[in-house]
Amino acid sequence: MNKERVKVLDCTIRDGGLINNHYFSDDFVRAVYQALSQSSIEYAEIGYRSSRELFPPEEYGDWKYSDDDKVKQIIDGIESNIKLSIMVDAHHVKEQEFAPVDKSPIDMVRTATYVKDIDKAMKMIKKFHDLGYETAANIMMLSKETEPDIVKALRKLEQSPVDIVYAVDSFGALYCEQVKYLIALFKKHLPGKEIGIHCHNSLQLAFANTSEGIIHGANYADGSLYGMGRGSGNCCLELLIGFLGNPKHNLTPILKVIQDYIIPMRKDIEWGYIMPYMISGMLNEHPRSAIAMRKTADKDKYAQFYKKMRTLVDRQE
Amino acid sequence: MNKERVKVLDCTIRDGGLINNHYFSDDFVRAVYQALSQSSIEYAEIGYRSSRELFPPEEYGDWKYSDDDKVKQIIDGIESNIKLSIMVDAHHVKEQEFAPVDKSPIDMVRTATYVKDIDKAMKMIKKFHDLGYETAANIMMLSKETEPDIVKALRKLEQSPVDIVYAVDSFGALYCEQVKYLIALFKKHLPGKEIGIHCHNSLQLAFANTSEGIIHGANYADGSLYGMGRGSGNCCLELLIGFLGNPKHNLTPILKVIQDYIIPMRKDIEWGYIMPYMISGMLNEHPRSAIAMRKTADKDKYAQFYKKMRTLVDRQE
Repeated sequence: MNKERVKVLDCTIRDGGLINNHYFSDDFVRAVYQALSQSSIEYAEIGYRSSRELFPPEEYGDWKYSDDDKVKQIIDGIESNIKLSIMVDAHHVKEQEFAPVDKSPIDMVRTATYVKDIDKAMKMIKKFHDLGYETAANIMMLSKETEPDIVKALRKLEQSPVDIVYAVDSFGALYCEQVKYLIALFKKHLPGKEIGIHCHNSLQLAFANTSEGIIHGANYADGSLYGMGRGSGNCCLELLIGFLGNPKHNLTPILKVIQDYIIPMRKDIEWGYIMPYMISGMLNEHPRSAIAMRKTADKDKYAQFYKKMRTLVDRQE
Repeated sequence: MNKERVKVLDCTIRDGGLINNHYFSDDFVRAVYQALSQSSIEYAEIGYRSSRELFPPEEYGDWKYSDDDKVKQIIDGIESNIKLSIMVDAHHVKEQEFAPVDKSPIDMVRTATYVKDIDKAMKMIKKFHDLGYETAANIMMLSKETEPDIVKALRKLEQSPVDIVYAVDSFGALYCEQVKYLIALFKKHLPGKEIGIHCHNSLQLAFANTSEGIIHGANYADGSLYGMGRGSGNCCLELLIGFLGNPKHNLTPILKVIQDYIIPMRKDIEWGYIMPYMISGMLNEHPRSAIAMRKTADKDKYAQFYKKMRTLVDRQE
């Protein structure tokens, strides 16, 4: 393993936007972009590109759409070599606009897809590729998929122009040994592609699983500042940088923006290792029930929530 | 790996006591003991047995001493099959009293030792063994020791009557691959002993490293409720129980005592993934500087603390 070959992508604004409907102030997004640029990590994912018809602008902040003009305004005047990424959901597509890459501040488009939507995703990836973008497919919810279905999707992607295929543990349900197994499967069926890894922290394994993925051959890895992201959040960027020990990276600007922006924000919106997210991860379930119960008066009734979730899971079986 | 062979020890009261000078209310200790008993985990470590001459009772709560009579009073009337453990520091010994095991509520005495104090520790272990206790040696600060010194200590322990030898990552500085290596080393040089693992969470790896240790042959594992413990805390007991999936264990009482006692206590005293503890772990340093800075007005100046710690570490090199 040569850790220096690993390309790090920060998804603070994109995944963090799932907690606050993508309402970040310009000042916040600029500060994050500046810190990431100073830290010399490779990619910053600045938001989603979603359809305003499917997601009306009265309900979402700017980073649900990440229009090129808005992105240009944010990064204007900040010295940076960082590449910018945006994400598109394969299952929510309608008339999003993409300029050719040389007219856009964006370098990479990542298409998030379930295994079942892989054909839709491939059509989109082809379009982004033809417009000149680096492309990635982020295959979600792998902890719920069967191996033959995963392999079928990987074989299709191997034939596509996609550059990177990410394994995504959407529910934060995978243990290290399962990550090792999955990455080996990805490598076997995607010999011509780069492999990426994106983990969630429900079981406090986002960083451990990301490093396990890297050890076993992933060379693109996602992190976010202090793990900011929906539910239990992501792999902490600061931990990933420490693990990689790439002399090119700089931890200080990351610590600075965490202390000045992220910790204050954490007082108003929550993410991280919180019991209901742990429970949904342990039961290999979507965090949506946990997110909903955290908005009620019963938000700390963990034993009751566990019982309810166990009953639901038992019924599915 | 047969996960059901793993014996789980909860060290909430013992390691948690390092945050609050061992001042826990009787009600709290009883509630924890009851929950652990109901969850059917194997051991509860209820505190230290320290010398009142070295540690004056004006400065410490009951669980710095864990007198047999006090322990009996706490557990009185609670139905339980759990075994009780106490800890002794090999480097702070003076006239602690130990009754023979059949006159005491305690089943196991764990001796915490640095590699350099191994002879002192062995003398104590011999005494506890002769009094009829199960015995363990917890070898601390392994991330700072050289392999020849560790091996020398292990070979001595192999010749002693000790039952279990724990690898302790005192600084939470080890990555999973290092844990794998250490446990293999322990197994090689301790063929006649049980192997244990005790991890700290500075790099959010306490649970991942504990499960890595188990996968590679440790069959005694420490956890604490919601990770409660000094600095970044320990492996979360609730995660460990989920990972082991032993049908004998019961998660519900653990979730209940976390919601009723631990989360409320977390509002007054802090532990867990907090940036200065992350920094000391990443630099393989004792958390004492981080603990001290968390008590100052600069407690959230992470970049400044990182710079200071880097300077200190560079000077050592």
